[in-house]
Amino acid sequence: MTDSIYNMAVRYADADTEITAVSPLTGPDSIECYVDEYLAVPGVIQEVIKGDKEENADAFIIACFGDPGLAAAREVTEKPVLGICESAITTAKFIAPYFSVVSVLDRSRKVTEDVVKAYGAESFCRSIRTTGLSVLEFGKNPEKGLKALAEQGRRAVEEDGAECILLGCAGFVDFVDRLREELGVPVLDGVMPAVKLAEALVKMNVKTSKANTWKAPEVKEIKGFNGIVDL
Amino acid sequence: MTDSIYNMAVRYADADTEITAVSPLTGPDSIECYVDEYLAVPGVIQEVIKGDKEENADAFIIACFGDPGLAAAREVTEKPVLGICESAITTAKFIAPYFSVVSVLDRSRKVTEDVVKAYGAESFCRSIRTTGLSVLEFGKNPEKGLKALAEQGRRAVEEDGAECILLGCAGFVDFVDRLREELGVPVLDGVMPAVKLAEALVKMNVKTSKANTWKAPEVKEIKGFNGIVDL
Amino acid sequence: MTDSIYNMAVRYADADTEITAVSPLTGPDSIECYVDEYLAVPGVIQEVIKGDKEENADAFIIACFGDPGLAAAREVTEKPVLGICESAITTAKFIAPYFSVVSVLDRSRKVTEDVVKAYGAESFCRSIRTTGLSVLEFGKNPEKGLKALAEQGRRAVEEDGAECILLGCAGFVDFVDRLREELGVPVLDGVMPAVKLAEALVKMNVKTSKANTWKAPEVKEIKGFNGIVDL
Amino acid sequence: MTDSIYNMAVRYADADTEITAVSPLTGPDSIECYVDEYLAVPGVIQEVIKGDKEENADAFIIACFGDPGLAAAREVTEKPVLGICESAITTAKFIAPYFSVVSVLDRSRKVTEDVVKAYGAESFCRSIRTTGLSVLEFGKNPEKGLKALAEQGRRAVEEDGAECILLGCAGFVDFVDRLREELGVPVLDGVMPAVKLAEALVKMNVKTSKANTWKAPEVKEIKGFNGIVDL
Amino acid sequence: MTDSIYNMAVRYADADTEITAVSPLTGPDSIECYVDEYLAVPGVIQEVIKGDKEENADAFIIACFGDPGLAAAREVTEKPVLGICESAITTAKFIAPYFSVVSVLDRSRKVTEDVVKAYGAESFCRSIRTTGLSVLEFGKNPEKGLKALAEQGRRAVEEDGAECILLGCAGFVDFVDRLREELGVPVLDGVMPAVKLAEALVKMNVKTSKANTWKAPEVKEIKGFNGIVDL
Amino acid sequence: MTDSIYNMAVRYADADTEITAVSPLTGPDSIECYVDEYLAVPGVIQEVIKGDKEENADAFIIACFGDPGLAAAREVTEKPVLGICESAITTAKFIAPYFSVVSVLDRSRKVTEDVVKAYGAESFCRSIRTTGLSVLEFGKNPEKGLKALAEQGRRAVEEDGAECILLGCAGFVDFVDRLREELGVPVLDGVMPAVKLAEALVKMNVKTSKANTWKAPEVKEIKGFNGIVDL
Repeated sequence: MTDSIYNMAVRYADADTEITAVSPLTGPDSIECYVDEYLAVPGVIQEVIKGDKEENADAFIIACFGDPGLAAAREVTEKPVLGICESAITTAKFIAPYFSVVSVLDRSRKVTEDVVKAYGAESFCRSIRTTGLSVLEFGKNPEKGLKALAEQGRRAVEEDGAECILLGCAGFVDFVDRLREELGVPVLDGVMPAVKLAEALVKMNVKTSKANTWKAPEVKEIKGFNGIVDL
Repeated sequence: MTDSIYNMAVRYADADTEITAVSPLTGPDSIECYVDEYLAVPGVIQEVIKGDKEENADAFIIACFGDPGLAAAREVTEKPVLGICESAITTAKFIAPYFSVVSVLDRSRKVTEDVVKAYGAESFCRSIRTTGLSVLEFGKNPEKGLKALAEQGRRAVEEDGAECILLGCAGFVDFVDRLREELGVPVLDGVMPAVKLAEALVKMNVKTSKANTWKAPEVKEIKGFNGIVDL
Repeated sequence: MTDSIYNMAVRYADADTEITAVSPLTGPDSIECYVDEYLAVPGVIQEVIKGDKEENADAFIIACFGDPGLAAAREVTEKPVLGICESAITTAKFIAPYFSVVSVLDRSRKVTEDVVKAYGAESFCRSIRTTGLSVLEFGKNPEKGLKALAEQGRRAVEEDGAECILLGCAGFVDFVDRLREELGVPVLDGVMPAVKLAEALVKMNVKTSKANTWKAPEVKEIKGFNGIVDL
Repeated sequence: MTDSIYNMAVRYADADTEITAVSPLTGPDSIECYVDEYLAVPGVIQEVIKGDKEENADAFIIACFGDPGLAAAREVTEKPVLGICESAITTAKFIAPYFSVVSVLDRSRKVTEDVVKAYGAESFCRSIRTTGLSVLEFGKNPEKGLKALAEQGRRAVEEDGAECILLGCAGFVDFVDRLREELGVPVLDGVMPAVKLAEALVKMNVKTSKANTWKAPEVKEIKGFNGIVDL
Repeated sequence: MTDSIYNMAVRYADADTEITAVSPLTGPDSIECYVDEYLAVPGVIQEVIKGDKEENADAFIIACFGDPGLAAAREVTEKPVLGICESAITTAKFIAPYFSVVSVLDRSRKVTEDVVKAYGAESFCRSIRTTGLSVLEFGKNPEKGLKALAEQGRRAVEEDGAECILLGCAGFVDFVDRLREELGVPVLDGVMPAVKLAEALVKMNVKTSKANTWKAPEVKEIKGFNGIVDL
Repeated sequence: MTDSIYNMAVRYADADTEITAVSPLTGPDSIECYVDEYLAVPGVIQEVIKGDKEENADAFIIACFGDPGLAAAREVTEKPVLGICESAITTAKFIAPYFSVVSVLDRSRKVTEDVVKAYGAESFCRSIRTTGLSVLEFGKNPEKGLKALAEQGRRAVEEDGAECILLGCAGFVDFVDRLREELGVPVLDGVMPAVKLAEALVKMNVKTSKANTWKAPEVKEIKGFNGIVDL
């Protein structure tokens, strides 16, 4: 999945943008529930710290549709940090009055609902539809997955009034083109928008506000994360 | 004001982006109430149509903080159309948990409130503060205007909890740098974000959804707009 | 359509109320999208100004269900200005806990949703249903239109829980009686309520607040509206 | 207080409108808390039933700013029933973008907040301000009461951004004219609007929807209300 | 019904908790509309006063799913007062992300919606489903009622996404076990949660805040409630 | 702090309730920002798993006012899991119409706002006030902390209309009695309510719904958490 994400990112990146795609050293293989979300975050924080200090990255993208750890990541760097869900929603709002999300397991639905709400996008989101297939099943049988996404996307447009479809998993980047063709409405993954919005923020020369909420964490003892997170 | 907007746009535009700044042929000198908003829109629509058909522009920015006619403009072209209020809010949400808007006359406050609500940004917006000065007065006495903006911006940060300040008038582009320095938090006008977001949307190759709401207007007779709006 | 509206207004007006029904000199033949809305507004503003200054009208009704230009019209006169959507919703809330709107094209749905929200009526509105027929098609084939309205009205009552039906187009005034009979719940167009509420406001002797937001527009140069809008 | 209410109603009623002002036979002397509200309602229901069956009234007004028993009253008759809070808010929304309520005891504040919310008027209501004086104290020392209302009204306009003031107690009808003069913005009691809106609804010939929620109560045994409420 | 409620309460009460189940001396046989609600409240207030003063009860439960008179009851005692709807919702939120309510007549739906909203539980409530059967019909034909509840509960889970089912009538306490088994998700009546939460509040030694809104009613004359409510 | 929490819990626990207070083996010394929140969660999950499997605990309390990892903890056990913020809010709603939270650093304010919103308690929460003191500073100088809490609590009551005060940090348990006395309104920490509500849920014999969202995490490889979290 990291390769697919990398390829999508590179395909849309500016010529002078260097993309580094990393999978955190710690965390679950896929993210489909709250435990997965939380166990993914320390690795996300660590990669942001490392990218900021060692690789001098200009911006960071959290490439999981639940945008795990977004606020925390913004605390550890002043460089822009973007989530792919946030980026997909942001882009959808510029090109359509309503969108729907099509995603993986039904149990993951609420995680998506949480972020849609957190971004103030409830009144733009007509539905969050799920295929009932896990990330793993999508990996094993992509054609079955594509068909399920097309079916849910079609229903989102016809029954729910969506005018744009967001793909609710970073693993769906390879399906974008075929779904766009099939559904006849804009179809967005989150990686592509995140890359372009990250570039835009970098060129705006804006930094994360360190006025209060997202300033650097207070220095304190943190047990058990040696080698996992180095603040 | 068109010159200031143009300069700000050019300053931040990519090297290969061509900026055309136009003031519609019809409409009021400044936009400070609902009548002004509505009388500005036909000219906005016309410029978008012209830019789309004659100048082959890739995207459009409505450079007034009330984003007048945004939905209508999206109907007449499939190229991305952005408002500067929408763009400023979008950018602020990436870099701060809360923002405030500082603006012109108190009577214009509700127009800003309307758009903040329309974009689902109510819970991010800590306050909309006004200086009591008209666009004209800002033009005549910029130093007085700057001082008033700084005062309201400071109160937004200290009393309202804003962590980012949005300047609620396209005429404020020349104040950004000094206010940022003075307030110690990110300060955004809307023109700069709109330019970078417009470039991002163009490079994403996304088009406005023509699925339903924003498709081209039905062809019908329209009286009295010959030479003003040519659909 | 202006005749039908006039007849409905006269039918319900008090004996001592004089109704003047005018179609603005400028604007589209029918209003079905945002472009139509915005191009209708200058003519609406002009008729309000004219009615206020030349005809000494006591109140104004904007007889289109999107209530185009309502806030602007309130700026140019201190006499009450009412929209028919606003009036229908106001009346429905007095006689039913929930209503639905049945309307024309699906693309026009969002315009109605915008005003329902703007009036704080979201939690009273069970659905906005559309027939898929344009204003023109209703004009050409009223029986087909009536049938479609009855079908959507019936579904609003049975499936959505509406206890009152609002007809979402000023062109539907001639259908009210038959739909009421057929649906077994109160059915309201907007013209009739607007006439009675306008009379009520006039007799209350209330004026639009000129305290701040809706006071007269600042005097300024407005290009291109000579003969269209005379502020 | 019933006399003041009657006088205000008659002053604004149409020539052919007959006003009957009744104080229910049961209930508290004034209504300032939830217990008061609930003990007032049986008497309100009874008067509506009586007015409907015996006096053939065409419409009913509940003249207490908490609109006690409004939904229940709508169940026992098909004639329009209006609350004065509902009527004041309805009227305010036609003539101002924002209003505030000035009222009696601080403890009664939440009752008002409840109804403002129930009518979907939260975003129009800038504040609910209280004088700290009870209904009784207003009766004993009207000048002190008037002064306190003026002070709170002034602060609502200057500090909270209200552009119209609603008087949050039926006992304030005699203060309307002086407060309007003093505050320089529209000031509304609820009785006057309710009378004119009731007349309007009657002439519209609309009836309360009996489709579902507000139909007549199921016939069942009710203990202990003989002579208090006769369904 | 009072017996069933008593039995459920005793079944779950702590060994040292004494349960007294009373049916107010005044009020309707069942509560299915707003009139029923309001006519039930004086009896509820009276029982709370009596229980507080004469029986020295430590807490009070209003055992009707509309929680009639809850705020009023809190004014007349400083002991905790709980509603069964409030208790069921409170409990559901601890054990499931979403719930639905299944209830009696469709006309009673809005009463439930009112309380769900009042408790801030709208975003947790996936649906309020009704069986179309009255409280009386449930009494006469419990098996038919059970079947109808099971059907609506099943649809709430499968179609609406509920993960916990609340039984929207105190008369359903005898159905809990069988519905839980049948539906495969947690099923809650309100009486059981209310008993355990009441015990918890008593042991916390918390009292209703008398700071302002819910302090004791002002002393004043109340006509017509001698022998019904003795404040 | 763990000792203070333990003492408070034991003080209020039923005689037959056994309290085990544990500080997770991993995580930060105090929790004051999003990074702290996220780095605390793996340890929280681990303690819940351990308590469930090894100690056969009947319920779990997350004793930090941001309720870190609550949804995740509910996935790894079917025993009730409660947060102290959730428990304090739940309790406050039973005894007061409005509450305020007084807390530590201003930067932590948004974490509290997030959970208040997540629990649907926005309209009950009048303010979230902060003392500007860190958890560490409270530890070092408790009297200074107490004074700051009293000051903010007083302002919450007098200026914001709070009728109950919640202490927004588990470290404040020792201040409850003195603040209650000083402020004259109910003052709640979260630990005490959580203990009593946990006991109540256990005696209700309810389990976390495993219908969908909160069922056990899918089995998958998780890197880097050996010895930290053992699913």
